[in-house]
Amino acid sequence: MEEKTISNKTIERLSIYLRYLTYLQIEGKEKVDSKELSKLALVSPCLLRKDLSYFGEFGRSGYGYNIIHLKNAIEKILQTDSSKNFIIIGAGNIGKALANYVYFDKLNFHLKAIFDNNLKKVGKKIGNLNIRSYSELETYLDKNNIHIAIIATPKESAREVYLKLTEKIVQGIWNFAPVDFPSTKHSYVINEHLSKNMLVLSYHNNKMS
Amino acid sequence: MEEKTISNKTIERLSIYLRYLTYLQIEGKEKVDSKELSKLALVSPCLLRKDLSYFGEFGRSGYGYNIIHLKNAIEKILQTDSSKNFIIIGAGNIGKALANYVYFDKLNFHLKAIFDNNLKKVGKKIGNLNIRSYSELETYLDKNNIHIAIIATPKESAREVYLKLTEKIVQGIWNFAPVDFPSTKHSYVINEHLSKNMLVLSYHNNKMS
Repeated sequence: MEEKTISNKTIERLSIYLRYLTYLQIEGKEKVDSKELSKLALVSPCLLRKDLSYFGEFGRSGYGYNIIHLKNAIEKILQTDSSKNFIIIGAGNIGKALANYVYFDKLNFHLKAIFDNNLKKVGKKIGNLNIRSYSELETYLDKNNIHIAIIATPKESAREVYLKLTEKIVQGIWNFAPVDFPSTKHSYVINEHLSKNMLVLSYHNNKMS
Repeated sequence: MEEKTISNKTIERLSIYLRYLTYLQIEGKEKVDSKELSKLALVSPCLLRKDLSYFGEFGRSGYGYNIIHLKNAIEKILQTDSSKNFIIIGAGNIGKALANYVYFDKLNFHLKAIFDNNLKKVGKKIGNLNIRSYSELETYLDKNNIHIAIIATPKESAREVYLKLTEKIVQGIWNFAPVDFPSTKHSYVINEHLSKNMLVLSYHNNKMS
């Protein structure tokens, strides 16, 4: 299979297929046809077949897809077949919620450390991790192989954290602070906008009423 | 201005412009030019001008945009100039984090109630709201004008909640449970995939290394 660059939209859909393949596997199913999978993923059967055929032959029409085979193939494409380490900076409500989000671990993303600059929080436990002082972040990144860092600080501290993470070449940065940071040559940044979906809902709200 | 349907992508960008216009206003600025605003929003100046010109004349080139004028216009388009009520079902980590997210209130989205089916949680406080029993949800929806409902329950309970919300015609549903629900004629549904962005980061991670 030759190396291809996949759009973020396709990655999103693949991650949704992966979700349902995992559920079907847990239910003890062995095969799924494109109609059933597309219905679960809320994607048209045509688009599903297009997505999957792009990466090679996963099944023959009329026979359905072998669930384990297809799941392994998607995991390989998304590279979740190897485990990834992530850290969280900011132990507030968002940081805590992400630290306790069980589905990351199931996808082979492992939370290794949580940092906060509030000394009252340092040493307290989230799950089985003690919150570390933010002052340790730099040394920690030098000594540990961290693939992804989540910024869950207030707006005011976020830029300093971002500059530190890019300086230390953390390759994936997921920013929940309400400010937008650009990707750099070595760090890919996703700026999360929690308010955005609220506004999308609000807009459609008025269209429907 | 004639009624136009705006794509979700455009709504997202407008919500980002709104964010920075608010920050600039807080800083006491009166005008902003498209170059500065596009830099903050990480959007090309060309796309910014295109987005804004689509809704009428907000400024003359070379003079910059009047911040309050532009902010009011975007608020009108996104219909955040009227206040919206929302509720959260599920008082777990995600529910609590969203309940405490201060930026919703700033955008005129007001949290009115939180529900949980765990009787140990019922009556406890999140912010200044007491957690209500899930059994009250139906009556609550009959008596109150709720625009948006957030599903923050485990996967197992999510479908029941979704069916109740669509039955009661809640117009906006934001689902954080790891399962996808379709929009209906009267309810617009956004399925949030927290894992999705982790997978996008992971994918780019490997591309960069």
